[in-house]
Amino acid sequence: MLVDGVAYRTIWPVEEGAAVEIVDQTRLPHAFVVVRLHSLEDVAVAISNMLVRGAPLIGATAAWGMALAMREDASDAGLARAAARLARTRPTAVNLFWAIERCRAALSPLAPTRRAAAAHALAVAICDEDVAINDALGDHGLALLRDLAARKRPGARLNILTHCNAGWLATVDWGTATAPIYKAHAAGLDVHVWVDETRPRNQGASLTAWELAHHGVPATLIVDNAGGHLMQRGEVDVVIVGTDRTTANGDVCNKIGTYLKALAAQDNGVPFYVAAPSPSIDGATAAGGDIGIEERAAAEVTWMTGLDETGATRRVGIAPPGVAAANPAFDVTPARLVTGLITEHGVVSAEKSAISAVLEKVGRPRAD
Amino acid sequence: MLVDGVAYRTIWPVEEGAAVEIVDQTRLPHAFVVVRLHSLEDVAVAISNMLVRGAPLIGATAAWGMALAMREDASDAGLARAAARLARTRPTAVNLFWAIERCRAALSPLAPTRRAAAAHALAVAICDEDVAINDALGDHGLALLRDLAARKRPGARLNILTHCNAGWLATVDWGTATAPIYKAHAAGLDVHVWVDETRPRNQGASLTAWELAHHGVPATLIVDNAGGHLMQRGEVDVVIVGTDRTTANGDVCNKIGTYLKALAAQDNGVPFYVAAPSPSIDGATAAGGDIGIEERAAAEVTWMTGLDETGATRRVGIAPPGVAAANPAFDVTPARLVTGLITEHGVVSAEKSAISAVLEKVGRPRAD
Repeated sequence: MLVDGVAYRTIWPVEEGAAVEIVDQTRLPHAFVVVRLHSLEDVAVAISNMLVRGAPLIGATAAWGMALAMREDASDAGLARAAARLARTRPTAVNLFWAIERCRAALSPLAPTRRAAAAHALAVAICDEDVAINDALGDHGLALLRDLAARKRPGARLNILTHCNAGWLATVDWGTATAPIYKAHAAGLDVHVWVDETRPRNQGASLTAWELAHHGVPATLIVDNAGGHLMQRGEVDVVIVGTDRTTANGDVCNKIGTYLKALAAQDNGVPFYVAAPSPSIDGATAAGGDIGIEERAAAEVTWMTGLDETGATRRVGIAPPGVAAANPAFDVTPARLVTGLITEHGVVSAEKSAISAVLEKVGRPRAD
Repeated sequence: MLVDGVAYRTIWPVEEGAAVEIVDQTRLPHAFVVVRLHSLEDVAVAISNMLVRGAPLIGATAAWGMALAMREDASDAGLARAAARLARTRPTAVNLFWAIERCRAALSPLAPTRRAAAAHALAVAICDEDVAINDALGDHGLALLRDLAARKRPGARLNILTHCNAGWLATVDWGTATAPIYKAHAAGLDVHVWVDETRPRNQGASLTAWELAHHGVPATLIVDNAGGHLMQRGEVDVVIVGTDRTTANGDVCNKIGTYLKALAAQDNGVPFYVAAPSPSIDGATAAGGDIGIEERAAAEVTWMTGLDETGATRRVGIAPPGVAAANPAFDVTPARLVTGLITEHGVVSAEKSAISAVLEKVGRPRAD
């Protein structure tokens, strides 16, 4: 999408494939810094240190890591070492392992001399597939937004609430929850986005508000506490969130706090949609209660990073010294609260048979 | 309650009534600073700038503002000016207007020469009444907590979730939501408190976590997003929150985000109690929808204050420069989500007849 009028993806090859460039997301929203990665090790460190984040983008970056690794050492040992190195970066990211395995399976049958070119082509393909999925998902979401806009009085803006960052920065382009929004904006719909700041890591404030503003989509930042009130007062027409994992029964695991917004949406008759590209659907897990929820460091709750008045980056403690803090990173929104899943194959109900049908369309049987 | 082993109230007279001292709550949790207020204007600024906050404490502080004003100008014009000045400080807190009106009604029949002494006595009485109300409310809440604890397996801690600060720092002493907790702790119940940080002003992290820790009550800080997940996983036995204003039908206006926790409590069968001393009950307002919600500065959302690693206080920007932010300060929890109101006259249903009965007990007819 656009940054200061220039179209970007989150990752792209340079030097005829000898390097890739990424946006250093740890510097957002205060600085837009492009970083060049020249090696497998550069890529591994970029993933570990969260210069790139978001499940689809982590997968795409890992594919580029494999491609750079094959230019360094295309032997069987080099292939195994690259896969092992990348697998150590973010132990819980499913797309990471999916991308590594896909590359390994495609490259290992090839003669080492052919692996670098093949790995490059595969990384390009994985990125383009992500863009195509989000593009299609966005078209289906756009149809929903058009319907909602048509029911409003002429001239009234369509208010969309989102949580965390399921934006283009979490993917190669378009985003998932944001794809319908960018498409609606491009189509001339008068859309406005309420952006939950999304404590504790503030991805809404740092990433979603930043990317929407740079693309020119009207947006207003709010604290995570405010969404229910805005729905009560009729200020939210639809909620669209992303998902880290949607289970076979339609339960949605997403960033902590998503469940509270789903409850408020139901209580106020606001449609609650989940942008769920098929790779985020986990047909092998029956229900959300089966998902282990990652507990992250207490310091994410008790410290905040920002820019001081001189423009210097500062980390400040915001809790009494020594106070205990708990930090569950995700929650599960029960399928009963989900109006629909927006997939690249259309908008479907958050229930087993509809989800199975999507998985069959993409060649993934339910028990994959 | 206790601060480093010393018992404090939040406001007390000094210089034989020529001034009052308060705890500057904007400096907590990083510094415990007592500030002396010498004039009506000092008091008005202290309320506006939230050096004191919390509906009961705002009321008590306003009473001291009237007392200091009567030392400056005890004429009818001075009385009217003091009431008008204080009324401009915070638009939502019903206790503010209640305290101002109570002072004005008591003082205006008196000869100006008698007003200063009478206003001083009235401020003392209002503070003592607040302490007595919270003490009684705490006893009723303690009985509830004992009942809940008795239903748990032996040795299991009782987990209480609270939002914002309805602690002793919000009152003259005891707090409202915390009064039952302090009493339960004193009675030897194994209580543990989940403290919502309560963005944007972080009163939970800065005040509630601080006061519970200083008094020795086990507590864990969480982001506002986490409470629903904890309830889903059975980690919350009861929610107790305060209220800025409870209307005749039992709707509860409280800090933004309270409504979301009430929804989660209902969805998970967790009792949701509101500590509602009678002065916070507004029998003259029919329902929560009639309450105007204060919209506060966007900077509260986009900037955070804390201590850096050197111990210096720093204000840091946490949002993209120039991003719009909305900041509604309160929301309304519908009466249907409230298990009960804990008042100084017992625990009552959040419905009209029960609320009328409480108001009659304290000599306030419904349409006061």
